[in-house]
Amino acid sequence: MRDRHLYGPGPSNQYPEAAAAFAAPLLGHLDPEFLDIMDSACDGLKTVFATDNRRTLPLSATGSGGMEAAFVNTVHDGDVVVVGVNGLFGERMCDVAARCGATVVRVDHEWGTPIDPERMKKAHSNPAIIAAVHAETSTGVESDIAALGEIKGDALLLVDMVTSIGGIPTPCDAWGVDVAYAGSQKCLGVAPGLAPFTINDRAFARRVEHPRSWYLDLGLLGGYVGEASHKQQRTYHHTAPTSMVSSLSAALRAILAEGLENVYARHAEAGRIFTEGVREMGLQLFAADGHRLPELTTVKVPADVDSAAVRRYLLDVHNVEIGGGVGKYAATVWRIGLMGHNARPDRALQLLAALKDAIDHVRR
Amino acid sequence: MRDRHLYGPGPSNQYPEAAAAFAAPLLGHLDPEFLDIMDSACDGLKTVFATDNRRTLPLSATGSGGMEAAFVNTVHDGDVVVVGVNGLFGERMCDVAARCGATVVRVDHEWGTPIDPERMKKAHSNPAIIAAVHAETSTGVESDIAALGEIKGDALLLVDMVTSIGGIPTPCDAWGVDVAYAGSQKCLGVAPGLAPFTINDRAFARRVEHPRSWYLDLGLLGGYVGEASHKQQRTYHHTAPTSMVSSLSAALRAILAEGLENVYARHAEAGRIFTEGVREMGLQLFAADGHRLPELTTVKVPADVDSAAVRRYLLDVHNVEIGGGVGKYAATVWRIGLMGHNARPDRALQLLAALKDAIDHVRR
Repeated sequence: MRDRHLYGPGPSNQYPEAAAAFAAPLLGHLDPEFLDIMDSACDGLKTVFATDNRRTLPLSATGSGGMEAAFVNTVHDGDVVVVGVNGLFGERMCDVAARCGATVVRVDHEWGTPIDPERMKKAHSNPAIIAAVHAETSTGVESDIAALGEIKGDALLLVDMVTSIGGIPTPCDAWGVDVAYAGSQKCLGVAPGLAPFTINDRAFARRVEHPRSWYLDLGLLGGYVGEASHKQQRTYHHTAPTSMVSSLSAALRAILAEGLENVYARHAEAGRIFTEGVREMGLQLFAADGHRLPELTTVKVPADVDSAAVRRYLLDVHNVEIGGGVGKYAATVWRIGLMGHNARPDRALQLLAALKDAIDHVRR
Repeated sequence: MRDRHLYGPGPSNQYPEAAAAFAAPLLGHLDPEFLDIMDSACDGLKTVFATDNRRTLPLSATGSGGMEAAFVNTVHDGDVVVVGVNGLFGERMCDVAARCGATVVRVDHEWGTPIDPERMKKAHSNPAIIAAVHAETSTGVESDIAALGEIKGDALLLVDMVTSIGGIPTPCDAWGVDVAYAGSQKCLGVAPGLAPFTINDRAFARRVEHPRSWYLDLGLLGGYVGEASHKQQRTYHHTAPTSMVSSLSAALRAILAEGLENVYARHAEAGRIFTEGVREMGLQLFAADGHRLPELTTVKVPADVDSAAVRRYLLDVHNVEIGGGVGKYAATVWRIGLMGHNARPDRALQLLAALKDAIDHVRR
């Protein structure tokens, strides 16, 4: 049985509390004990998203399912959706929004750079939705979501927080975010399979009443989770993945017990140690200076080194997983994450030692 | 920490092998070790679905997500879809198909009775799709899918096998099933969160090329799982819920090691013992004689007994979960499952003893 160090762009290794809850005896999705756990998970997500939105819940799908839920519930046929594209997940937003009937206005940026709020503002005079990725998993870049909140006007601001949640601050209400989705398997330190989601009253009031997706219909889901008050009767919608939700709830409790500021500081510290070490090894960083995510570092593969050979050696000899690049950067960039439970100085040093050994080995 | 006996309509308690794999260290979704596990899960599903379909895979959603995937990939705008409705999940099919753009032709049946193939045939002269639920989770009734295969003509036959898979035979190819979906959390004895899915070449050739759902687009998914040969390069689509897939793979190995015929016989035996015991207690069955599912028994609540009080007592005193009824039968029917790992004579007897104690207690 393999015990991997998951230092790629996600999944990351689980928080021990998340792993323990995951392995606990299974509960039914309508068990009162489970409904308490679900409520606790929703409350924890509200704290991490820093929002008062009563519709804050984990969707029964992975992060990409969260993206689909965000658009399918908010895009009316022909709506103009301005999408900032500075990596794979911005690209994906365009595809998903178009399938939901949007007229997509792309604002392309060079990969490795952040979204430019001024260009987003100039892209269209009156969009229904402005969409962007907070932390681009394909490039390791953070974009300024607060600045998009300032220029959004009457539009809804829809944000991908898959790789930011639990690793860097994601204050949705303060930034003017109307809809956000995330993933369980990155800085929240939970297995892949859930999409934390939040939508405010303003966006919910404008929603599509009968969206194309039944599975992700927030109007129907509200009867079971998120919207229903704790005392209210729950209505069955679908069978929630109870173990996943229990695990998320346990991870959120651990994160909030440590304190969000401490958790963010731990991510920042691990990222700082790793990037400094990488530079000392003579390697170059891919993401633009000043916009790098601490939890996900993109490193340029040295010209004399085969990317796949290094990754294979890391996996075989060190049980360490790192990620390759995406698209045209597949062979020339590594994506290396220290997320959630892995965001610790000792792991940053272990990872540096393993990476150095692997590069030395491939060069020999 | 609660350790429930999950004797409702699902989830059921996990097979021990499934629970162990679920709790194993997390793997990445592109780890070669994990891809072998995914291949093994797909192969196991082909055996249980009794199909040669190369597109047989676990979708990253619950059973209702599987239903959505079935329709969103096969329904072209305006297609006539004949749906057999004899319970909640047939109702749901109508809703999902309509959102995908179908012209739905409902064939309503009394709840508790099976689908009538002759009425399905007469409902429309040339439908694109005929859809039905094999094992209605809301009523405990099995319908004759082979008979629908005989009358389908040029239509695709689309079948819900959520509550049948792993409990009673589901020979898709022999019955002429073109598309089928299921759930992990019933007779397969895995936690909720995956939708086993199969589609044959005939249905895939007629599919919607650019379906409204990106997340459930089978054309895109094929690059990662199901369609790609074992040796072929995998393309990233979304982050698969790796622990869930490992757990499903382990459950399928355990089921196939026991032997499918033995597993079905075990379900039949447990169901027989339970229904005989229920009758000896003087209770009446809801589902039509000759069409009852062994894995899910529907029992009429005695007129002098409060359904919710019995269920609450079972949960509090015996740690036993059973289900209430659905819709207008919410308070007058119990749904009681002996599925997967729970389909054993000793558990049938335990369940009978607990149910008798609960009814006696509430009557006192």
